[in-house]
Amino acid sequence: MSFRQQHLLGIERLAPDEITTLLDLAEDYVALNRSDDKHSEALAGLTQINMFFENSTRTQASFELAGKRLGADVMNMAMQASSVKKGETLIDTALTLNAMHPDLLVVRHPNSGAVDLLSEKVNCAVLNAGDGRHEHPTQALLDALTIRRAKGRLHRLNIAICGDVAHSRVARSNLLLLHKMENRIRLVGPPTLVPGAFAELGCEVYDSMEEGLKDVDVVMMLRLQKERMDGGFIPSEREYYHRYGLDAEKLAHAAPDAIVMHPGPMNRGVEIDGTIADDINRSVIRDQVEMGVAVRMAAMDLLARNLRERRAAEAAA
Amino acid sequence: MSFRQQHLLGIERLAPDEITTLLDLAEDYVALNRSDDKHSEALAGLTQINMFFENSTRTQASFELAGKRLGADVMNMAMQASSVKKGETLIDTALTLNAMHPDLLVVRHPNSGAVDLLSEKVNCAVLNAGDGRHEHPTQALLDALTIRRAKGRLHRLNIAICGDVAHSRVARSNLLLLHKMENRIRLVGPPTLVPGAFAELGCEVYDSMEEGLKDVDVVMMLRLQKERMDGGFIPSEREYYHRYGLDAEKLAHAAPDAIVMHPGPMNRGVEIDGTIADDINRSVIRDQVEMGVAVRMAAMDLLARNLRERRAAEAAA
Amino acid sequence: MSFRQQHLLGIERLAPDEITTLLDLAEDYVALNRSDDKHSEALAGLTQINMFFENSTRTQASFELAGKRLGADVMNMAMQASSVKKGETLIDTALTLNAMHPDLLVVRHPNSGAVDLLSEKVNCAVLNAGDGRHEHPTQALLDALTIRRAKGRLHRLNIAICGDVAHSRVARSNLLLLHKMENRIRLVGPPTLVPGAFAELGCEVYDSMEEGLKDVDVVMMLRLQKERMDGGFIPSEREYYHRYGLDAEKLAHAAPDAIVMHPGPMNRGVEIDGTIADDINRSVIRDQVEMGVAVRMAAMDLLARNLRERRAAEAAA
Repeated sequence: MSFRQQHLLGIERLAPDEITTLLDLAEDYVALNRSDDKHSEALAGLTQINMFFENSTRTQASFELAGKRLGADVMNMAMQASSVKKGETLIDTALTLNAMHPDLLVVRHPNSGAVDLLSEKVNCAVLNAGDGRHEHPTQALLDALTIRRAKGRLHRLNIAICGDVAHSRVARSNLLLLHKMENRIRLVGPPTLVPGAFAELGCEVYDSMEEGLKDVDVVMMLRLQKERMDGGFIPSEREYYHRYGLDAEKLAHAAPDAIVMHPGPMNRGVEIDGTIADDINRSVIRDQVEMGVAVRMAAMDLLARNLRERRAAEAAA
Repeated sequence: MSFRQQHLLGIERLAPDEITTLLDLAEDYVALNRSDDKHSEALAGLTQINMFFENSTRTQASFELAGKRLGADVMNMAMQASSVKKGETLIDTALTLNAMHPDLLVVRHPNSGAVDLLSEKVNCAVLNAGDGRHEHPTQALLDALTIRRAKGRLHRLNIAICGDVAHSRVARSNLLLLHKMENRIRLVGPPTLVPGAFAELGCEVYDSMEEGLKDVDVVMMLRLQKERMDGGFIPSEREYYHRYGLDAEKLAHAAPDAIVMHPGPMNRGVEIDGTIADDINRSVIRDQVEMGVAVRMAAMDLLARNLRERRAAEAAA
Repeated sequence: MSFRQQHLLGIERLAPDEITTLLDLAEDYVALNRSDDKHSEALAGLTQINMFFENSTRTQASFELAGKRLGADVMNMAMQASSVKKGETLIDTALTLNAMHPDLLVVRHPNSGAVDLLSEKVNCAVLNAGDGRHEHPTQALLDALTIRRAKGRLHRLNIAICGDVAHSRVARSNLLLLHKMENRIRLVGPPTLVPGAFAELGCEVYDSMEEGLKDVDVVMMLRLQKERMDGGFIPSEREYYHRYGLDAEKLAHAAPDAIVMHPGPMNRGVEIDGTIADDINRSVIRDQVEMGVAVRMAAMDLLARNLRERRAAEAAA
């Protein structure tokens, strides 16, 4: 098997063959989830703990369902109402949880790098469910699976990532993954939200949706953080929608069979027109959610296999 | 089998034989729940998601326990803290969840009709756990099972429904069910809280508890929404209790073996006297809670059977 | 088997042989939790409900994991957002839950004695997860297991319990347990926080850490409730740390192989120095967390066995 990771902290550490292995396994789980018996025992006997220091109903739900369907004992820790408030540090919390012997620890944290740090302190497999502006690897993997299913391949595609690229861990993980798989990536958005830092990856940068979307195969919209509105970054919702919101007119510049993606939750009428979001001929937004559960099942399954192998090797030594 | 529903949205759509089928199966689950091995595999391999847009500890707990005891993978979505707040619509949320392939979706929502609407958008079985002032079908079914066990039958009984009938989905679902099963129903309460709209079902309406309870077999009290006090509907807690609160004196007008019901949680000393609520010779309030779990197990079991049949038929076609 | 309890309400009711039985079984669960297959079926078919009227992330997590690993159907009740707010009494809530037929009820409540009271109203096994200033028996049991593993025995040890003894149910349960097992106990702290009420147990009381820790085998620190600071009980964080906070200098007065304990969550720099807390040669704080899960598994397993026996006897009668 060509998946050699101990943790899933970011796309940056994954080799292309590891990405392919994971997506291939996820295909099996897509089929399982569509069946009438969507319960497996791949993680039976193992414990999964979800530690979300930021609220995220859908990502947490996706990981929770993934673990339960794989037969793990799954526990959610509501970190807002927790002892973190009582002055405990992240590391104290992590070490406390680690002492309860989880096998898989799913962590979301508002600080970039917090999940990497945490992974060094525990002896289970850690999955990054989003850390600050750093990475959100399972989002990039589910996007990749969605693209591969819709386009029949995951390389040599023209892909536009549009909107608030600067603050987005989703954009960052997607960029890394799509670049590794040898796609041509364009970043489209207002200059304040699309920094030039990704030039090293060979991205083209556009300020105009019409030019940026020209003939692309994939239009990947990002969620606009409304709290950044009117704060210097961007003018107003109406103005933003006019220039960067995806509507039929702008989409007409893309390839005729281009797909539309969004990581959710959507701001309809801000970064995307509701009609396009719901157009099942163009939008693969619901597919992304479906692929999310499958990709997380695959990731946890692969990490659990490596964990078991590592422990068996340690026991034999 | 004579349960032909795809969803459980309201009592209105159920035929009497379907109600009987469900209650009969619930009897089996009463026995299971009283045993030492209260776990079955009836829903094994299936996923149940509870989406509560209104808080309800006891109804959610009842559905959660029901699903877990039947072997489903059960997930609660805390919809307050969720992306609903981020501007997502109900339908977006429903379609997102639907993409995760739940088999059973239990929904409570403050708007009448919201659950029906939602059921049209998803391809799993939907259970209404209360929508606005519309319906709360599992409450009516658990009340029916409680009555049937206490009285030996569910027809030709004299039943008084007392209190805030106008705003109560519990009252509405109970009225529909008890009318279908051919009982004689009286509505008792202040005119502001008992509208004449139910005249078509042949209910008798009383402003006086003494007259309304005369010789009835069942006294069904409703929860008073305290926020409606002193707002024009009703004068004050003290005055309300004096005129409409169930105490020993008023109960003496009912049949000597009349049972007392309340959907909970109770306002002791407002709509009901605490001593009567706790009198195990008259009150069946705890039985209602017990029947609640059993009825929900039966409902989910029957819906799951229909779901599996439907899918098998689709696969064969 | 020498565990004869119907509930686990406090250490006060346990005989020494019952404590030993429980700790011996917990050892098996320590091994299970360290393995790759940490799931058992000891509680399969049973329902566990966790009712926490006070927030406690780590204690609730510990009980939740314990129940899930033992194969129970586990449900958490968020009692803050619940019908308790709607005016329901504790007993109403308990009787409502009881009607759902839980087998194990884990309860934390801010009022001393509330859990005992509740246990008289239900017909399942009740575990006290902390009630007011009264008892926190599983904390004392996990501390006992931690000591026994570190010291090789649980008797004739010199043990100092330091800090806010007066308000601490942890201190009280530990005192009772360690006294039953024939250890020599010292209480160390400011006179306002260490009342003389425990003199009957033969404790020695010290106002000075240096004297109180002299040659002890175990240093058990308590969490300082910061809200009691500057309120007459104790002067300030800085002053408190200077006099009663555990640092290397004060610890030097203990035996060279003395272990350091803390029930968590810690206030680093208030009641304990962070370096000492993290010193794996002295601190057993992480072990305490690990033992917590194992001890709770053992407690629930033993109570479930007694429950099943009692029910079988009733059925045969």
